[in-house]
Amino acid sequence: MSARNPADPALGKVSEQVSVSGPGEFDLIARYFAPLAGPGAFGLGDDAAVLTPTSGQQLVFTADAIISGVHFLVDDPAADVAAKLLAVNLSDLAAMGAKGVGYLITTAWPRALDEGWIATFAQGLAEAQAAYAVALLGGDTVATDGPMCLSLTAIGELPIDTALRRNGARPGDHIYVSGRIGDAGVGLRILRDGLLGGPAADRLMAVKRYHRPRPRLALGRSLRGLASACIDVSDGLVADLTHLSNRSCARMVIELARVPISPLADLIGGAAGAIVAGDDYELLFTALPADETRLLAAASAAALAVTCIGQVVEGEGVEVLDQAGNAVVIDHGGYRHF
Amino acid sequence: MSARNPADPALGKVSEQVSVSGPGEFDLIARYFAPLAGPGAFGLGDDAAVLTPTSGQQLVFTADAIISGVHFLVDDPAADVAAKLLAVNLSDLAAMGAKGVGYLITTAWPRALDEGWIATFAQGLAEAQAAYAVALLGGDTVATDGPMCLSLTAIGELPIDTALRRNGARPGDHIYVSGRIGDAGVGLRILRDGLLGGPAADRLMAVKRYHRPRPRLALGRSLRGLASACIDVSDGLVADLTHLSNRSCARMVIELARVPISPLADLIGGAAGAIVAGDDYELLFTALPADETRLLAAASAAALAVTCIGQVVEGEGVEVLDQAGNAVVIDHGGYRHF
Repeated sequence: MSARNPADPALGKVSEQVSVSGPGEFDLIARYFAPLAGPGAFGLGDDAAVLTPTSGQQLVFTADAIISGVHFLVDDPAADVAAKLLAVNLSDLAAMGAKGVGYLITTAWPRALDEGWIATFAQGLAEAQAAYAVALLGGDTVATDGPMCLSLTAIGELPIDTALRRNGARPGDHIYVSGRIGDAGVGLRILRDGLLGGPAADRLMAVKRYHRPRPRLALGRSLRGLASACIDVSDGLVADLTHLSNRSCARMVIELARVPISPLADLIGGAAGAIVAGDDYELLFTALPADETRLLAAASAAALAVTCIGQVVEGEGVEVLDQAGNAVVIDHGGYRHF
Repeated sequence: MSARNPADPALGKVSEQVSVSGPGEFDLIARYFAPLAGPGAFGLGDDAAVLTPTSGQQLVFTADAIISGVHFLVDDPAADVAAKLLAVNLSDLAAMGAKGVGYLITTAWPRALDEGWIATFAQGLAEAQAAYAVALLGGDTVATDGPMCLSLTAIGELPIDTALRRNGARPGDHIYVSGRIGDAGVGLRILRDGLLGGPAADRLMAVKRYHRPRPRLALGRSLRGLASACIDVSDGLVADLTHLSNRSCARMVIELARVPISPLADLIGGAAGAIVAGDDYELLFTALPADETRLLAAASAAALAVTCIGQVVEGEGVEVLDQAGNAVVIDHGGYRHF
């Protein structure tokens, strides 16, 4: 792990607003992050980490960045922010059918940040890496005058040529989704907007699904050789189905009534609201109808429900049908950064 | 490459300040970053990239984050910022003796950023990845209300068990540095403080050394089996020597007069100033005196000068001697983030 930039006095002076009070970044790394270092990371004390790939495996890489106030609420618990950042990257690995191996993290902490926040963040990272059997391989710690900015690169592996892709869906395939859609969207609205209603237990569950998504790694691995295309539901069911449609050059038709939705979905507009809410990190995939029995067995082994919600047809785009078979107009104007 | 967070409408609404004008992040990725994607990155259109490791090789990982106004000047050219971010990560790989393979980048762009800046940034990345034979494997593009925040993870490879480490220096080893020390520090002072003096050609060279450091990848590879410890000079010669000292549990003694310094070093306090300036990205390493002939041949093959500047002795810490053999007091208070 590096704390290099700008430990050098020259580069450091680029900013004259730099504080030299409080613990140094080397101390922060040694205290909170070095204990998370895996084999080959040399206690974060070298220029880089070294990893020996497993024979016969390919490596899989993904990276995500998150900004305080944009991707997480400024008062989200530090441990949840850390665990979620790791989980959403592992969810990308799950969508490829890979298992997790390790990760690197870079953190830009606001200068006024309480050290306790960092300690709790590292604790959340420790819990998540233990839960998902990955280890810290490196990273960087810097300070910023802006909002907290965190970036994580996850590394996974899978047997050669078994990666699940987005481009393999073919007309005639069925469309499946794991778990339930809309929980995280409800959770966010409860936290951010003070959304009321629903039983307390469901409300807690929804908030937990928002704060601590669980990457579907076991399911993803069991879909190798079964799913023709796969993606994780991060942008929202319709948006992610659109990615599958675009990449596979095929039309995706789903029936709204078949989508397994949150018990609190009524709070966000019912099924139509749930399918445009994001952050559920379920797997959305396609497969031959003939493979459905094997699919359901794989899902059962992963302790997850899997539901057929529609099918792939010739054409392009995504169509959502109501119970009468009429097209539902989906308002998923969508979030754009710029 | 993902643009996921928060392309999902739910998560997106965390921030109410979000603009939806201008090109979307998917457009930015498609336009500027997809053309940089290497084999296995699927045009940045999948959840993750897949890489087949070379048989008999280990993989090497490092990551750095940089913030506008802290790690680079807000008016540094976009192409230089990009090329330097990649180069400083590759410099870490060089210090391990690895060759570069690929990289992932996450970018948090200020919302008001001109798209032309991003285009030029991508151009700089393209030039640098061509120069160093690496390819883009993935990343993420988000927007921020704060200063630009960039993070890059570099992936390299080297034959199993040949990594150069920081902990192998032993009493009796000589200490060497490649190239010249202080150029980048002078360059920064010229750009940031309007430092005057020196021939125009030297001034241009110093600024170029600051903007476009060249990772010493060929030298690093040729040091495998020769150097007992190695680090790249990013924090400054004395600071990085201190890292080698700490990790190797040995004392590093260098002679100031032997350090190859910038022709403009007088502008920053001479040799004493040069050895506490950072950002030169030369290799600093130790080796047995008996290997010096092989070392010099390796350096010559890499078209680099290598200079013996001192030796490793029993003890701890770093000592800098003047020509009379007296210890020089080094003021390298050092930059700390917190």
